[in-house]
Amino acid sequence: MSGRITIVGTGPGNPAQTTPEAHAAIAAATQFFGYGPYLDRLELRSDQHRIASDNREELSRAKAALKAAAAGNVVCVVSGGDPGVFAMAAAVCEAIEEGPPSWRNLDLDIVPGVTAMLAVAAKAGAPLGHDFCAISLSDNLKPWTVIEQRLRAVAGAGLVIALYNPISKARPWQLGTAFAILREVLPWSTPVIFGRAAGRNDEAIAVVTLAEAKAEQADMATCVIIGSPETRIIERPGRAPIVYSPRATGGPQ
Amino acid sequence: MSGRITIVGTGPGNPAQTTPEAHAAIAAATQFFGYGPYLDRLELRSDQHRIASDNREELSRAKAALKAAAAGNVVCVVSGGDPGVFAMAAAVCEAIEEGPPSWRNLDLDIVPGVTAMLAVAAKAGAPLGHDFCAISLSDNLKPWTVIEQRLRAVAGAGLVIALYNPISKARPWQLGTAFAILREVLPWSTPVIFGRAAGRNDEAIAVVTLAEAKAEQADMATCVIIGSPETRIIERPGRAPIVYSPRATGGPQ
Repeated sequence: MSGRITIVGTGPGNPAQTTPEAHAAIAAATQFFGYGPYLDRLELRSDQHRIASDNREELSRAKAALKAAAAGNVVCVVSGGDPGVFAMAAAVCEAIEEGPPSWRNLDLDIVPGVTAMLAVAAKAGAPLGHDFCAISLSDNLKPWTVIEQRLRAVAGAGLVIALYNPISKARPWQLGTAFAILREVLPWSTPVIFGRAAGRNDEAIAVVTLAEAKAEQADMATCVIIGSPETRIIERPGRAPIVYSPRATGGPQ
Repeated sequence: MSGRITIVGTGPGNPAQTTPEAHAAIAAATQFFGYGPYLDRLELRSDQHRIASDNREELSRAKAALKAAAAGNVVCVVSGGDPGVFAMAAAVCEAIEEGPPSWRNLDLDIVPGVTAMLAVAAKAGAPLGHDFCAISLSDNLKPWTVIEQRLRAVAGAGLVIALYNPISKARPWQLGTAFAILREVLPWSTPVIFGRAAGRNDEAIAVVTLAEAKAEQADMATCVIIGSPETRIIERPGRAPIVYSPRATGGPQ
């Protein structure tokens, strides 16, 4: 029997931001693998089974999901946001490459979603309106020296930076250090956006300058966007400011 | 009367990838501003009016939309993909900053969508599975020297690169030059994905190496993804290969 595995992105957490394609993939599956809080968002039928695992167990979760698919089940691996951005799609691909040849013969589908930086940017204005990058600040899977090199390279080249995984209990100092590095490269007036739970009931969007930015303003559910030297803030009386990066650029300073 | 303007991302062009939030925003509006082919995708009611304009007229379109909103209309500005990624959100913000103070008092909402690189990546595997960037290859609004510096910086730093606006009739040589620059920095075996119309009926996804990549493989509707030195290809008998960037990295070469 040839099984099937679909990796689904449910978007930032607001049901109105989950695509019909994702809903259809969820309706078609019978076994659901994912981080518990992401699985909690699904409304499953009695014939649909959830296999929750911890945040840090991506590779073992991917292997368990592939094994279930290889046994003939219709399996859904659930990510928040987009599954291809610091999420489960890469872990499943890794498991396929390392696993038995039969896993390469499974029907594999990946359903994209709205990733956190897009939802946060939409709430703030258009901070990703020109060239930008997405960097994970987690040094669990890469050396901190690489992260530091990348921050200097992209800030120096004039790209807006979206930071994923900015902080956690196990990684308390990295975000503060990242701000310190960026203050060496960028104007201290550069806008910084802390976007937490964008689109959800507990949404919180804060706009500060790089001079003011503090690591304590972020938690695990936050995406941090740091402007380029050309990113601008439009003040609006009685309303939240708009942050945007102009389409035209004169180049890095 | 206080008007309202909503900038909506309809996703890559497959209706199943348009969010319920986008559909609701479209249903609520009465005037639609956008590039003709994007407006053509909407199923409008008889009380909903379309004001189509050319691809290159983003700022004048933004101003016309703001003017209509300021006159009390419920206005929708339509982008394909996500409106914050090389699309209309930045143009509207620019127009607000340059325009009359009353435009800052309009209700402004931005509805995110699945941007092209996410849809293309989902079809290919997980090429954006680790740090990545999005760069517009259009030199209409920035000097080519800046684009060249950015390509060298991000490739040298080990980021995967998604190229938007890779080629057009008016910009025929830039993509070939970009490949030549990247061949100076990256291994020639680096995977390159040409993703055209991902998720639509006329979808075409091609995976080649950087050595083989040719500008003629792209058109205006193509998003080109160039791997990092760590991006891998999994061959599958009788199926399309999987391209992915591992979650762990040893750092740039």
